[in-house]
Amino acid sequence: MAVERSEPVPEDIEARLSARGIVLPAAASPAANYVPWVTSLGHVFIAGQAPIVDGRYPWTGRVGADVSLVDAQHAARVCGLNLLAQVHAAIDGDWERLVRCVRLCGYVSGAPGFFDFPKVVDGCSDLMVEALGDAGRHARSAIGAAGLRFDVPVIVDAVFEVR
Amino acid sequence: MAVERSEPVPEDIEARLSARGIVLPAAASPAANYVPWVTSLGHVFIAGQAPIVDGRYPWTGRVGADVSLVDAQHAARVCGLNLLAQVHAAIDGDWERLVRCVRLCGYVSGAPGFFDFPKVVDGCSDLMVEALGDAGRHARSAIGAAGLRFDVPVIVDAVFEVR
Amino acid sequence: MAVERSEPVPEDIEARLSARGIVLPAAASPAANYVPWVTSLGHVFIAGQAPIVDGRYPWTGRVGADVSLVDAQHAARVCGLNLLAQVHAAIDGDWERLVRCVRLCGYVSGAPGFFDFPKVVDGCSDLMVEALGDAGRHARSAIGAAGLRFDVPVIVDAVFEVR
Repeated sequence: MAVERSEPVPEDIEARLSARGIVLPAAASPAANYVPWVTSLGHVFIAGQAPIVDGRYPWTGRVGADVSLVDAQHAARVCGLNLLAQVHAAIDGDWERLVRCVRLCGYVSGAPGFFDFPKVVDGCSDLMVEALGDAGRHARSAIGAAGLRFDVPVIVDAVFEVR
Repeated sequence: MAVERSEPVPEDIEARLSARGIVLPAAASPAANYVPWVTSLGHVFIAGQAPIVDGRYPWTGRVGADVSLVDAQHAARVCGLNLLAQVHAAIDGDWERLVRCVRLCGYVSGAPGFFDFPKVVDGCSDLMVEALGDAGRHARSAIGAAGLRFDVPVIVDAVFEVR
Repeated sequence: MAVERSEPVPEDIEARLSARGIVLPAAASPAANYVPWVTSLGHVFIAGQAPIVDGRYPWTGRVGADVSLVDAQHAARVCGLNLLAQVHAAIDGDWERLVRCVRLCGYVSGAPGFFDFPKVVDGCSDLMVEALGDAGRHARSAIGAAGLRFDVPVIVDAVFEVR
């Protein structure tokens, strides 16, 4: 199991994405003194990605009040698509350079009494494995945030290993 | 001091644990598309660990209202035991492979007006040094979460260095 | 762009700081079983830094209620000064050893209805680029916390790459 995890079988990611109808968005650029990703010593650190689609925020508010669990899972999946778009840019579009998804941290804005933070972030985790196979299995934390930018229900950041 | 930190004296961890009566639980397996730990380029990234004991959650609610500070510190210690169980699994039970605990992030669910987040996470930090000696000293953040899964009062994730 | 990011042009950091009138505080020491920073495999992991000035907390309370956005940005800048003081200690005062700021995570305590978490953390991000030039550009997450120690409005932790 240790071997499996540290040396996941390389996959034809592009073919996987096509076969599953997964279309990556353009990698978004933040307009501040930070960058969407930094490559450092074999890891790509990716800035927190919001559920933004074509420059718009389809979901706003708190999960369990303004946003349903199913919609929040969809939003987390969109965060994951945006993470994949960023890592794709970081490796200059060459999926052969991707080793694995190492870690996700999902921050969820929930209504009082909502505790299903992991189920929300599953939307992102499931996408990683759907898109990357075993190389998509990652360590993860899912946390309740008091609020998130633009009142989005979920933000996810990530660390990937690359070669 | 820099040398001490980057090359902590190796310790007989198993003997330390026995001498202090620290018994590690079985490493828990999450049932989703993520894994409890990933080894990547010499670091083990461990998923957020809750204060779960034998599959049960002895503490629920917010620190300062439903859970006392002392109980929350005990809960954070249990998070630490679960982190140690995971890293122990990641190094195939061979403590010689452990270099050090690098970083902890503790998320605490506190009642309004509760601000002693660091004191709660001390329960986990103290365990690391008790169990690992100087190799247990780590960088840390302690944050107030709006909520955590199963309404637990604290979750801690970690990065360890291994060889 | 990938090259720029992975090999930022070295800068005379000391001269930059002087020219901009940036004075680093003494690196603060936490009084618990954790340390302000850990160097591990070429990365320095720094503990969450609060907006503390000469041992005092000039700003307390929630952004958007007790603390204005402008004051919170200033507080985030102070977090950044404290991060730089810690990395400066970690590299024994030799800025030549600094490769870059890799990642920041900013936790912001906001009033209900406050969502400008990124604008607050910009106070820290802007300082990084002001102090370090291109080597200061980093990946980042900005999160709403339910509360922070001593009721401070913002805490920022960081990963730097060093040689």
